[in-house]
Amino acid sequence: IASPSSADLKLQFAPFSSALEAGFWHQLTQKKLNDYRLDESPKCIKGYYYNGDPVGLPTRLNLEFSAFDVDGPTPARCSPAVGTLYNTNTLDSFKIIDKKALLEKEAREIWDSIQSGAAWKDPSTLCRFILLTFADLKKYHFYYWFCFPALCFPEGIKIVQPPSLLEQIFSAKQIAALQEAYDSLCMKRGTTALPYFLMKYTDDTVEFTGCLSHTRTHSLTMNLLVLLANQWGSKVDTVEVLCFRDRTLQGSRSIQHSIMFQVKLPELPNNSVCPKSVGWEKNKKGAMGPRMVNLSECMDPKRLAASSVDLNLKLMRWRLVPSLDLDKVVSTKCLLLGAGTLGCNVARTLMGWGVRHITFVDNAKISYSNPVRQPLYEFEDCLGGGKSKAMAAVDRLTKIFPGVNAEGYNMSIPMPGHPVNFSQATLSQAQKDVEQLEKLISEHDVVFLLMDTRESRWLPTVIAASKRKLVVNAALGFDTFVVMRHGLKKPPVSQSVSTGADSSPSSPGSSLFSNIPGHKLGCYFCNDVVAPGDSTRDRTLDQQCTVSRPGLAMIAGALAVEMMVSILQHSEGGYAVASSSEDRMNEPPTSLGLVPHQIRGFLSRFDNVLPASLAFDKCTACSPIVLDHYEREGFSFLSKVFNSSHSFLEDLTGLTLLHQETQAAELSCSCCKRGWRS
Amino acid sequence: IASPSSADLKLQFAPFSSALEAGFWHQLTQKKLNDYRLDESPKCIKGYYYNGDPVGLPTRLNLEFSAFDVDGPTPARCSPAVGTLYNTNTLDSFKIIDKKALLEKEAREIWDSIQSGAAWKDPSTLCRFILLTFADLKKYHFYYWFCFPALCFPEGIKIVQPPSLLEQIFSAKQIAALQEAYDSLCMKRGTTALPYFLMKYTDDTVEFTGCLSHTRTHSLTMNLLVLLANQWGSKVDTVEVLCFRDRTLQGSRSIQHSIMFQVKLPELPNNSVCPKSVGWEKNKKGAMGPRMVNLSECMDPKRLAASSVDLNLKLMRWRLVPSLDLDKVVSTKCLLLGAGTLGCNVARTLMGWGVRHITFVDNAKISYSNPVRQPLYEFEDCLGGGKSKAMAAVDRLTKIFPGVNAEGYNMSIPMPGHPVNFSQATLSQAQKDVEQLEKLISEHDVVFLLMDTRESRWLPTVIAASKRKLVVNAALGFDTFVVMRHGLKKPPVSQSVSTGADSSPSSPGSSLFSNIPGHKLGCYFCNDVVAPGDSTRDRTLDQQCTVSRPGLAMIAGALAVEMMVSILQHSEGGYAVASSSEDRMNEPPTSLGLVPHQIRGFLSRFDNVLPASLAFDKCTACSPIVLDHYEREGFSFLSKVFNSSHSFLEDLTGLTLLHQETQAAELSCSCCKRGWRS
Repeated sequence: IASPSSADLKLQFAPFSSALEAGFWHQLTQKKLNDYRLDESPKCIKGYYYNGDPVGLPTRLNLEFSAFDVDGPTPARCSPAVGTLYNTNTLDSFKIIDKKALLEKEAREIWDSIQSGAAWKDPSTLCRFILLTFADLKKYHFYYWFCFPALCFPEGIKIVQPPSLLEQIFSAKQIAALQEAYDSLCMKRGTTALPYFLMKYTDDTVEFTGCLSHTRTHSLTMNLLVLLANQWGSKVDTVEVLCFRDRTLQGSRSIQHSIMFQVKLPELPNNSVCPKSVGWEKNKKGAMGPRMVNLSECMDPKRLAASSVDLNLKLMRWRLVPSLDLDKVVSTKCLLLGAGTLGCNVARTLMGWGVRHITFVDNAKISYSNPVRQPLYEFEDCLGGGKSKAMAAVDRLTKIFPGVNAEGYNMSIPMPGHPVNFSQATLSQAQKDVEQLEKLISEHDVVFLLMDTRESRWLPTVIAASKRKLVVNAALGFDTFVVMRHGLKKPPVSQSVSTGADSSPSSPGSSLFSNIPGHKLGCYFCNDVVAPGDSTRDRTLDQQCTVSRPGLAMIAGALAVEMMVSILQHSEGGYAVASSSEDRMNEPPTSLGLVPHQIRGFLSRFDNVLPASLAFDKCTACSPIVLDHYEREGFSFLSKVFNSSHSFLEDLTGLTLLHQETQAAELSCSCCKRGWRS
Repeated sequence: IASPSSADLKLQFAPFSSALEAGFWHQLTQKKLNDYRLDESPKCIKGYYYNGDPVGLPTRLNLEFSAFDVDGPTPARCSPAVGTLYNTNTLDSFKIIDKKALLEKEAREIWDSIQSGAAWKDPSTLCRFILLTFADLKKYHFYYWFCFPALCFPEGIKIVQPPSLLEQIFSAKQIAALQEAYDSLCMKRGTTALPYFLMKYTDDTVEFTGCLSHTRTHSLTMNLLVLLANQWGSKVDTVEVLCFRDRTLQGSRSIQHSIMFQVKLPELPNNSVCPKSVGWEKNKKGAMGPRMVNLSECMDPKRLAASSVDLNLKLMRWRLVPSLDLDKVVSTKCLLLGAGTLGCNVARTLMGWGVRHITFVDNAKISYSNPVRQPLYEFEDCLGGGKSKAMAAVDRLTKIFPGVNAEGYNMSIPMPGHPVNFSQATLSQAQKDVEQLEKLISEHDVVFLLMDTRESRWLPTVIAASKRKLVVNAALGFDTFVVMRHGLKKPPVSQSVSTGADSSPSSPGSSLFSNIPGHKLGCYFCNDVVAPGDSTRDRTLDQQCTVSRPGLAMIAGALAVEMMVSILQHSEGGYAVASSSEDRMNEPPTSLGLVPHQIRGFLSRFDNVLPASLAFDKCTACSPIVLDHYEREGFSFLSKVFNSSHSFLEDLTGLTLLHQETQAAELSCSCCKRGWRS
């Protein structure tokens, strides 16, 4: 505050101090991410100040989370101040923005409101501020510079009567009268604080003659004096200023420590020219410059992590893909069958997309060769026989991002050709496993098939087809991979087999088709003319799927998730028509691009092709007759499949007959998936 | 051992017990991985047995690491036994292999050697064994079944004189004479044990009349008796058998506990027909069946991890890519400039390929948004302001695979347009950074450029070009990426500028070329008509390279490493002619496929193209004039580049002139890499 000690002294003003709370920055972050994005245009915000602070504290203009709600309430006994927020997109814009111009613009508006008389009617226009910010949301560093514009009299303001405490000037009676008048005016106005008022006083009474006056000797007073000079310049020479302080000291109210002084109202040089102005706040070193607050350390780290993760995603929408529906992706519940090389990479990519609900199913333990290729495991996880993959994967996701909602199921998936009828115990375990898998598939939106055998994909393919869940399937060869979505059957309209069937005829040997809608697309087994069976029995080590070029699983895992996201962004989801390689030059169906049926990759050629193929009416997994048997007979049908050889499903679907009719050529492939065509 | 108690009893034989030591399995693992691979043909191995064990221990046939060295030494006082190893490729082959046939085959050979008289000359042919194994090298489970073939007399062998300890039959004098005769025969033969001998004895003397006899009443004795019956059948009715035991008891030698008995030598039924045989060992439960030993828990975990990691790699060679030179890959020293999204994924893929020497350079700290996209970091790494990425990446690699040789450098890379001349301190820091980078590039074989700005790639591009190091560069857009190798300049033949230059003229706007040899290929900057400068100054958040589809970095990181491996497998390495998209249908130049110059990927179309382009003689990074200035002036040249704007390099290389002559179209791209053409 001003501390003039002699009559010759000029009035000096203590500038407003900015007090920006963490809540303000948090709210700014949200606004930036969700509303402003790249919009740098000025925004209206609201702060408040309080005249009840103890002696010694600077006059603070507070900005908290409520600052962005300009029409919202002001805290009790505080006065509002409306300001302009300039939030820049880059630190560089923040640095090079023309601060002088911003100040002059604001000062001009104050001056104009004074000139026009608007400020006399509503002096709140005198109390405006500027806040220039740059929010580095990657580091949670917030750069800011605060400005409270104050118009200046060229010669300063001469003090006629130096400041004194009110109790030294007013009698106790006068003080009581002031307090009573203040309170009744507040009540009349329905407020708890008056930012400005005009008053007359006698020895006994205090009368408020207007709303104008102010509460502390801060920069605002300068604008008030300019207003008064402009208003009264010719009529009034000296004004008495009351800096009203409304404190509570040791439980009782006190306005005695308000300050009064008299100044000579200076002449304004020229009515039409805006006076000079000052107002940019000094930084903590006392120099003219911006301040920076680093909130990365004081915010709740887990919340910080959550909002940081969202940031990268939201950034995509700002300019690159404004139509991206992130919620659709983030809220998708993903079931990962297999937590090996593919499962780990799929989970990592899902995390990158902000997917929160991830469930693993695997029955394997982590072995020493896993960590270098399965990016959720470490050496420690292999000790003592190895942790369960499903459980360890959950632990790792939580370590990566504590906000994830991950679950693990250490369980087997029953498979065709792997009998379960050794004993009552094995049979009832298989039944439990089937029920658990059915429950899990029901509870999730997308099922990822990421196992290393062909036959383990059969049961989830059947269940997911029956439950109309989107299936994304990935399988590896040595340097080739397939990533595909299964056809998503239309919702069942009746229980009869014929309506569930795709009426269009198809054959297993058919090659690429165009414009196949999602519900007519094939599944993983549609291209095969042999039912799944125990494929691990006769495989040598190098025929197991884990023998692949190390980069392959990362590529296939990433593509499986990117394919899922593309499907989710399509208005028809899993029913979207399949894009093929020929569509690459056409207008893409989603903002993210194509929605293929299959991506078949060839690492040796660094090439991908996008075949699409129809569902096969004799498919051993998704054909109407298989789904019908499953839906009607449940586990008793499934156990027949588990306990039987290939021929059971082949007889059922009519493949046996087809075999007899056609000489189906066995196509060789290094992958366990037989009959894989490129 | 046999324990007949009456003269009517038949001789019974204690079978050999197999004693397979961890060293044997370890050596089998190595043989399987490096020599046998998928070869299932029978292998000759050597075990040994010892006749000095204390009473109560079974007669063991020991197999240890030395078993595969058939011509190697046998431990002192032990006798060798040669056998046949059948190591199968699958557990299923192990189970279904015809054990009866294996036994009969071996028995027939023994019989034949008896019939032919060969066994009389060299009775070691009587002492043969079979070992059937399956090594599950993923789990370190070893399945085995041991067989010591013994020919049988149909009616058994009648005991004439039941077994007694030698000391009950021989006088002390006779025992001393036997010991002396035994030792002198050993000495004469240059050995420490005699597996078989024939002896005559009187009350005073023991005379060895041949090498035939045996040391314990085990299965081998059966074959010996068949041999004797065949040899002496018509002449001799009863033989006395000495089971020679050569123990050391409480420090002094003792052969007193050898056993003697007499048997009636049975008649052989028919000279020409091989007798029946027995010999498959019972398992620990006493049933006929294989045994399994789980070594995953008792082996040194870190060594286990190391050999497990190698396994997947070696598996590739067995059938898929026999010509793969793994050592070239594994021994490559990789320098990763940037430990962010790309750096983490590149490091993970390198680990998958078994690369052991990985060095990170990064000056950033881990922020909360990193772990979900940068797969070497976790939430914990972000706390307290964040760990250094380079250091944390090293820690993580060590946690994944303790055998890795990783180092981290938390340092900045000076950049064009980022002045370093603020003070003597900043200048000397920059000089230190340059020297450190030069040292690191010298010490490594491949330099990966994985930063998120264009200009940070300039200095390493110049240094690596000058030092003729292979550079693999990866950069991300929102849904596009480029992975490329820089042209590898030919070794300098003189210091003159002209010889270092590629003489063929080229222009920056040129499109794809065919058959460009590696030394004429362009670098990252060759396609650009603007020198690198401070590109971060005016970028909004969404223009920073980290805003990309989450799967993109995994794909690009994986491809960068797979490209490196393909280059390393090419006989000409970095000088290999660049494969292009058109080469996809041709015979690939390496066993792993193509060796492109660039892979440009488009995630929205799930497509990659493989452009190749010539080095540009006005390139701001790899052109002869830039390299010449760098090599002659060193840091003083570099600091000029750091401190200057674009125009310095553009003036130097002649780009400025080119600008004036041609209206170079600025091509827009979402990536920070300007002028990126697809």
